[in-house]
Amino acid sequence: MQIAVLLYDRFTALDAIGPFDTLGRLDGAETVFVSERPGPVRTDNGSLALVADRGLGEVTRPDIVIVPGGPAPDVEMKNPVVLDWLRAVDATTTWTTSVCTGSILLAAAGLLEGRRATSHWLYVDELTRFGAEPTGERVVFDGKYVTAAGVSSGIDMGLTLLGRIAGDEYAQTVQLMTEYDPQPPYDAGSPEKAPADIVARLRAFKPSAESR
Amino acid sequence: MQIAVLLYDRFTALDAIGPFDTLGRLDGAETVFVSERPGPVRTDNGSLALVADRGLGEVTRPDIVIVPGGPAPDVEMKNPVVLDWLRAVDATTTWTTSVCTGSILLAAAGLLEGRRATSHWLYVDELTRFGAEPTGERVVFDGKYVTAAGVSSGIDMGLTLLGRIAGDEYAQTVQLMTEYDPQPPYDAGSPEKAPADIVARLRAFKPSAESR
Repeated sequence: MQIAVLLYDRFTALDAIGPFDTLGRLDGAETVFVSERPGPVRTDNGSLALVADRGLGEVTRPDIVIVPGGPAPDVEMKNPVVLDWLRAVDATTTWTTSVCTGSILLAAAGLLEGRRATSHWLYVDELTRFGAEPTGERVVFDGKYVTAAGVSSGIDMGLTLLGRIAGDEYAQTVQLMTEYDPQPPYDAGSPEKAPADIVARLRAFKPSAESR
Repeated sequence: MQIAVLLYDRFTALDAIGPFDTLGRLDGAETVFVSERPGPVRTDNGSLALVADRGLGEVTRPDIVIVPGGPAPDVEMKNPVVLDWLRAVDATTTWTTSVCTGSILLAAAGLLEGRRATSHWLYVDELTRFGAEPTGERVVFDGKYVTAAGVSSGIDMGLTLLGRIAGDEYAQTVQLMTEYDPQPPYDAGSPEKAPADIVARLRAFKPSAESR
């Protein structure tokens, strides 16, 4: 069993690490970090690099693909090398998954047409451009496609998918080992719950996927 | 404002990335990843490396230190170079923080003597060896020392500390941008909530900090 995590310039670290430290604990699975060019790949604010040990051409038949998001999905959305790779590996995956705006990349590759999917709350409506059906749910299963909402939702996605693959008891064991008993200090984690002025401000400053 | 995240061989990725993608969003702050030797540092299961851009000697006066944990804290507990660095930077930090067994390193450096602190539930009692007072809480403040429980608790710690530093509204904005509205598929994230047989099994297989 091989799990491939796609890295690209300006991805968001937690998008990748949430599933990595939950689903990636699957017994007997090998997780590989891949990017167009192997080597260090910088996260969204530039202050951290994760190492992609493999290039895309070295990972051709992963069982599970995880596509993290980031604030600049439009760059990779137009990168034919990445989109071709997503289409190619998807042909043989058991599960094709994303966190945050990673679903925009799956959609741009044509993989979510006619499917229910989610994304970061600021970007979820853009899924319609590619024929996907946006939902406000946190983790969405449609066939073998599993999409998660913004950034931290990859932890919930990782545990949920781990339970489907390895059983509830195994997933609960990983939940306990990662002490995932969340106690957020505020209740502002969704646009429905956050103060309205904060939501409005973020909507106003949302980087357009077209203008950058 | 400089935030330093300590990396060392076999750290747990989510321990470092939880605070990085919350507290690290502090406006105007620079986050640097440091380790004994700059370069790639492998996580606990070996399948990922994060890059430490700086060596310990290059980061001498961070405002905030974040020490992640891992399943092998005993190695760094006996590393005088790391313990000396922790003591040296702590002399001028505003906040000295840890996630998971990172608190065992702070304690081994003598920084938690007489202080209330937490750690991963499997390891929290070991804090007594170094004169700290273990608690079962998820995020513990004692003066400028902030310790978090296992792995995923670093997200709660990061948001809580961000609120103290930058105000509730700023922290809520970061919570909304990271869409931190957790929906775990199980309620097994603490030893009090998880099925008893899972807790017992993990306690039985707990790697001893002395025997490795």
